[in-house]
Amino acid sequence: MKKKIKKINAAILIIGNEILSGRTQDKNIAFIANWLNSKCGISVKEVRIIPDKEKTIAENILLLSKKFNYVFTTGGIGPTHDDITAQSISKAFKVKYEYHKKAFAILESYYGKDKFNLGRKKMAKMPRGAKLIYNPSSGAPGFTIKNVLSLPGVPSILNSMIDNCKKYLTKGSKVFSKTTNLYTVESDISKKLGEIQNKYKKNVEIGSYPFFRLGKVGVSIVSRSLSQSFLKKVEKDLINLAKKKK
Amino acid sequence: MKKKIKKINAAILIIGNEILSGRTQDKNIAFIANWLNSKCGISVKEVRIIPDKEKTIAENILLLSKKFNYVFTTGGIGPTHDDITAQSISKAFKVKYEYHKKAFAILESYYGKDKFNLGRKKMAKMPRGAKLIYNPSSGAPGFTIKNVLSLPGVPSILNSMIDNCKKYLTKGSKVFSKTTNLYTVESDISKKLGEIQNKYKKNVEIGSYPFFRLGKVGVSIVSRSLSQSFLKKVEKDLINLAKKKK
Repeated sequence: MKKKIKKINAAILIIGNEILSGRTQDKNIAFIANWLNSKCGISVKEVRIIPDKEKTIAENILLLSKKFNYVFTTGGIGPTHDDITAQSISKAFKVKYEYHKKAFAILESYYGKDKFNLGRKKMAKMPRGAKLIYNPSSGAPGFTIKNVLSLPGVPSILNSMIDNCKKYLTKGSKVFSKTTNLYTVESDISKKLGEIQNKYKKNVEIGSYPFFRLGKVGVSIVSRSLSQSFLKKVEKDLINLAKKKK
Repeated sequence: MKKKIKKINAAILIIGNEILSGRTQDKNIAFIANWLNSKCGISVKEVRIIPDKEKTIAENILLLSKKFNYVFTTGGIGPTHDDITAQSISKAFKVKYEYHKKAFAILESYYGKDKFNLGRKKMAKMPRGAKLIYNPSSGAPGFTIKNVLSLPGVPSILNSMIDNCKKYLTKGSKVFSKTTNLYTVESDISKKLGEIQNKYKKNVEIGSYPFFRLGKVGVSIVSRSLSQSFLKKVEKDLINLAKKKK
């Protein structure tokens, strides 16, 4: 009996001049992509990094939310003038940008009434109709509206919140992956490897990545498939290829 | 006398399933963006990460090469079946995908005639009219056609090649940046900081990034401008802000 396959995909939209300028090394892409794949069976199909500009954010939100099942944004939900993700998403979806009652209450109790200043209140402003993504580290919640989920840019805070996204996501079929390391160089196996990819093109996606480790060169062959039995077949072929070479 | 300002921008297109899946942490974005800004006065305005799919690559090349002064691609120029950057760029620009004579000669002498197999020859195939970006580490050159520059995905090799891109680029006016670290929290200074940004909105772009260091919290205020004298004015205001706070 065949299992029904459910392909669900996502895009990641990184919002932040600090990533574009090279000042900050992004760490969220790999983390979110790994989490989505391993915990939710969702594959990331596109990532964009864009500046803190309302028009650019709104255009990308509209486009990506149409093209993919989910869009994750990171960055721009803090208290300062350059934090404009929530207002830009409100613009994109033509909904009001206003205080979210529950977020307001969470933040007020987190900071205490007399320390709950304007900057902190700003973090409770969201697109009308948004639902909250709870933040166990630093109070300020993320939010989701339609198929967009907005998280902060600071990796440690994002990491602590990611599991709270789960309830807003429909799970897909998990893509399994298998890495086979061969101690050879890519160009010596490229022809045969192409033949193996061709043989399994309907069921397995094969990538080839050279590595340098302890002075030795090698190639990591990464196979991805919805079926573990196909991965085993590919691995067998790869081991035979390594024995023959060229 | 006013200096003439020359704004030149670029996009980066990361081609590779291994980055999208989260298997590999990208290191090229920050490196290229820093190099472009510091050595060439070119600002990166958009980054996209896309899968190894010919149609997707070609569409993105066309779109980004129209929208920005330069497009840097990384990945997909090796010898295996999943290395399809050169053929996809040929498709995008409707030019032949063929052996580049000089690249062929370089690779043949690098590997030696009898070890110059089909996989290795593939790395000499480029869009017709491409010019070479020399590779001092591993033979296989990158290439440039129109305003697109294609580099490999392995960071150490890319890093060794980047200076060879310079001769294909028109320099822009350098964007200077100044980081001022304040030992406060973002939400305590957000209002005043917004006022400073507003005061200098024509000449300075101010970003605010919380940090946690040796158990202390703080905020890095990063100011960027084409004018160093404006950066000094902003810094003075920021130091005054820190004295007063709130």
